[in-house]
Amino acid sequence: MAIRALVWNEFFHERHNDVVRDLYPDGIHATIAGVLSCEDDIEATTATLPEDEHGLPQARLDATDVLLWWGHKMHRDVDDAIVERVTERVHQGMGLIVLHSGHFSKPFKRLMGTPCSLRWREAGERERLWAVNRSHPIVQGIGPSIELPNAEMYGEPFLVPEPMETVFISWFEGGEVFRSGLTYQRGAGKIFYFRPGHETYPIYQNPDIQRVLINAVRWAYNPVSAWRDVSAAPNVPADKAPERIKPRGGSLHKPGEDGYR
Amino acid sequence: MAIRALVWNEFFHERHNDVVRDLYPDGIHATIAGVLSCEDDIEATTATLPEDEHGLPQARLDATDVLLWWGHKMHRDVDDAIVERVTERVHQGMGLIVLHSGHFSKPFKRLMGTPCSLRWREAGERERLWAVNRSHPIVQGIGPSIELPNAEMYGEPFLVPEPMETVFISWFEGGEVFRSGLTYQRGAGKIFYFRPGHETYPIYQNPDIQRVLINAVRWAYNPVSAWRDVSAAPNVPADKAPERIKPRGGSLHKPGEDGYR
Amino acid sequence: MAIRALVWNEFFHERHNDVVRDLYPDGIHATIAGVLSCEDDIEATTATLPEDEHGLPQARLDATDVLLWWGHKMHRDVDDAIVERVTERVHQGMGLIVLHSGHFSKPFKRLMGTPCSLRWREAGERERLWAVNRSHPIVQGIGPSIELPNAEMYGEPFLVPEPMETVFISWFEGGEVFRSGLTYQRGAGKIFYFRPGHETYPIYQNPDIQRVLINAVRWAYNPVSAWRDVSAAPNVPADKAPERIKPRGGSLHKPGEDGYR
Amino acid sequence: MAIRALVWNEFFHERHNDVVRDLYPDGIHATIAGVLSCEDDIEATTATLPEDEHGLPQARLDATDVLLWWGHKMHRDVDDAIVERVTERVHQGMGLIVLHSGHFSKPFKRLMGTPCSLRWREAGERERLWAVNRSHPIVQGIGPSIELPNAEMYGEPFLVPEPMETVFISWFEGGEVFRSGLTYQRGAGKIFYFRPGHETYPIYQNPDIQRVLINAVRWAYNPVSAWRDVSAAPNVPADKAPERIKPRGGSLHKPGEDGYR
Repeated sequence: MAIRALVWNEFFHERHNDVVRDLYPDGIHATIAGVLSCEDDIEATTATLPEDEHGLPQARLDATDVLLWWGHKMHRDVDDAIVERVTERVHQGMGLIVLHSGHFSKPFKRLMGTPCSLRWREAGERERLWAVNRSHPIVQGIGPSIELPNAEMYGEPFLVPEPMETVFISWFEGGEVFRSGLTYQRGAGKIFYFRPGHETYPIYQNPDIQRVLINAVRWAYNPVSAWRDVSAAPNVPADKAPERIKPRGGSLHKPGEDGYR
Repeated sequence: MAIRALVWNEFFHERHNDVVRDLYPDGIHATIAGVLSCEDDIEATTATLPEDEHGLPQARLDATDVLLWWGHKMHRDVDDAIVERVTERVHQGMGLIVLHSGHFSKPFKRLMGTPCSLRWREAGERERLWAVNRSHPIVQGIGPSIELPNAEMYGEPFLVPEPMETVFISWFEGGEVFRSGLTYQRGAGKIFYFRPGHETYPIYQNPDIQRVLINAVRWAYNPVSAWRDVSAAPNVPADKAPERIKPRGGSLHKPGEDGYR
Repeated sequence: MAIRALVWNEFFHERHNDVVRDLYPDGIHATIAGVLSCEDDIEATTATLPEDEHGLPQARLDATDVLLWWGHKMHRDVDDAIVERVTERVHQGMGLIVLHSGHFSKPFKRLMGTPCSLRWREAGERERLWAVNRSHPIVQGIGPSIELPNAEMYGEPFLVPEPMETVFISWFEGGEVFRSGLTYQRGAGKIFYFRPGHETYPIYQNPDIQRVLINAVRWAYNPVSAWRDVSAAPNVPADKAPERIKPRGGSLHKPGEDGYR
Repeated sequence: MAIRALVWNEFFHERHNDVVRDLYPDGIHATIAGVLSCEDDIEATTATLPEDEHGLPQARLDATDVLLWWGHKMHRDVDDAIVERVTERVHQGMGLIVLHSGHFSKPFKRLMGTPCSLRWREAGERERLWAVNRSHPIVQGIGPSIELPNAEMYGEPFLVPEPMETVFISWFEGGEVFRSGLTYQRGAGKIFYFRPGHETYPIYQNPDIQRVLINAVRWAYNPVSAWRDVSAAPNVPADKAPERIKPRGGSLHKPGEDGYR
């Protein structure tokens, strides 16, 4: 059975900026989904901000193994209830791949618990992404580094938690560096942040970048069935304790009562 | 100059439950602040939920080095704007010590980005907290373990990110275990979660627990001045790049324009 | 193509202690290899200390995907050159599963860089291993915890580096706790330490323990081809630099010379 | 009482290479110790390879709070027994700062458990070290980055374990990047690897580099008294267990017997 990948896009600049439209006439989501769909073990679909519930009703997310997230100008327009839904699904085991300007998206900031801020410059400069661990599944099929002739610069400090793994570090022509590929585990969900992707350059048409996206979908896929009650805090009554105990002392809760939250 | 510690309490059960009132007639916050104030290098004050802005106006937080957080039944009543303010101050460098049922408090969940869920039982059973690293500053002055004759049980899985350091692991009479002392770094702020503290037992009157709280305040204190613009994402124009570059390629932003967020 | 697992055993107590011989007449290695071999995707063989080169000549290790290590009384008898060979293969990508008393084995201490010390007691007491992350591949097919009626106790502090993931934490009847399942990444190799296994109890005949071992072999397997030159420190001459540079300043090395090590 | 810092140097190139001698006539160790000694709270001494026991007898190490390690061409000449002594002291709580080519020193490789390999180029190119966390104690007193006009290049992949914190990442004129400041905790000891320092350039005369070294000594200092038995694995007999247990089942060890190692 194939990995069900869902590529989400705010789908704004492709409709309002000529440079971007020329590069991605059907939207960045369509380009990426097209790339993923060429793989036998991945089945990719898309959803966008303007759709009902941003194209992310609960049933759709429940049927998604890995979500890819593109957003930039419209972060604020993403509904908080849907952000909650997305993060809950990550906790349950859905993989999440956050692309480029998605560093400031609501789901990513929510999952990181940090500002996710950085420095930036849009000058079309050269970027070189170095693979820090050549044996990592995400970097297979590329060389020691990926070179992009034109890229927006993102510079450190990047205000995220210390990652589980640093996968890529970028060198920029203008003199900065950036941790461009980072992995996290949050609940049952695996998260990969991947920096490249500024929409005024043909980044997602670069074969190495496409290879990384395909690898990342496979890496982020957790085949274990969803951890549905990951957020529950069940009471274990004294008579169900693994060891026999004799309850004693004062108490706040009545027998059978739920905990507070 | 002393470390400015602020002990926050929702201050509910001490006013509505006789067992708790007997143990903490002036509130848990008063007890803890009293303990901290005995130290020459700590200056402790308190704030509670019923106060205006929950006792946490911006100026108060700006003058706080380490915040201790107690909440249980009233998590939902904490205003989201104040949660935002607290987490922003943590990112800027304020230390945060989250106590017991504070695992479900809004600031902690926000900073962790995970459900922070767990299993629990209120049976007054015995707990023994083992120090995993005896050289850690937080465990100085206690023995290899702390024994509590009566405690509420918290059991794994505890849904938090993998910590920077595991400081304590608890053994419970009823057969469960729990990571009871965990450290995190988020932005410039240091965070310590410390499990013990159920309000129906005299936990905060235990000298070992008091010692850990004092140690934790010192550990969480970041003497560096606040990182005020930790959440800013400044543009670095091409002519200010560390290396000389010639801007090229398409662009989304006009010169001098702010980024999107 | 199947995962090539190799179960190594010092094979001492099964030949010199009656209790152990009765439990594992052909040796612990034979029992574990038998369990693994029932899986279609695993092909398990064995090697022991008394064999030539401890049964671990270079060619054998080169043809091994995941090595399981059992040692206890004979750690000192393991040849340093072979320890070097094993750790180098881990760096190249071979998975390593270290069992129980293997915490003091030379390969594990070498890969951890810490004393790997702990407290212990041999009293046949009850142990309960709690899964800290129920969605982890290593804990699939078991319940929330594994209960062992008789086990040797290992107690914290366990002097290892902070792990990549804490997979299991043990509760002991006598009052201690222990981080019983820990993962590490070292070079291209994945390492899993798994505590249970004292040889005077039928631990490896427990179906849950067997399930964890099978899961761990699959988890530790890195399908990427071996990183053969993982320990090399190649010179990148100035004329092969990714960006054009003009060499300048003093130098220690003559052109083409190797670095020091 | 001052922090007792000890600067160790193999002291070879300063005696055999004219460029290095001119920069460091009394040896790199003397220059660094001179810098540290200007601080009121640091008391710095030196030791070198040619001295008896490399200047590191047990008593000397026992009286050392933080050891700084410079080595390059003579790594192999460092006696294994002394390496063992140094790593044991780190586990007990001595801080360790490993400088530049010390990445291949025996103590560092031993403590990391990985090859510590990298790529390199000696072309006097420009390096810029970016502070990843501006609030970290090690980067206080410097700006967002440190610029070195001439440096040897070290490039990723750097084969070390994922660090506790990434403090610096370097940009190189020739197009590479490197994690130039990394922290680790091993046992009770704090370790900082700091990349700059090639001996043919006046790196240790740069005020920012000096500032980092001073900060790092303070950071690595663990004021807790040494954990003398950090490597011991004491038996906890059944009658000394925290909870009452009744010993049962087979056993390998006779009462009072030591464990195997």
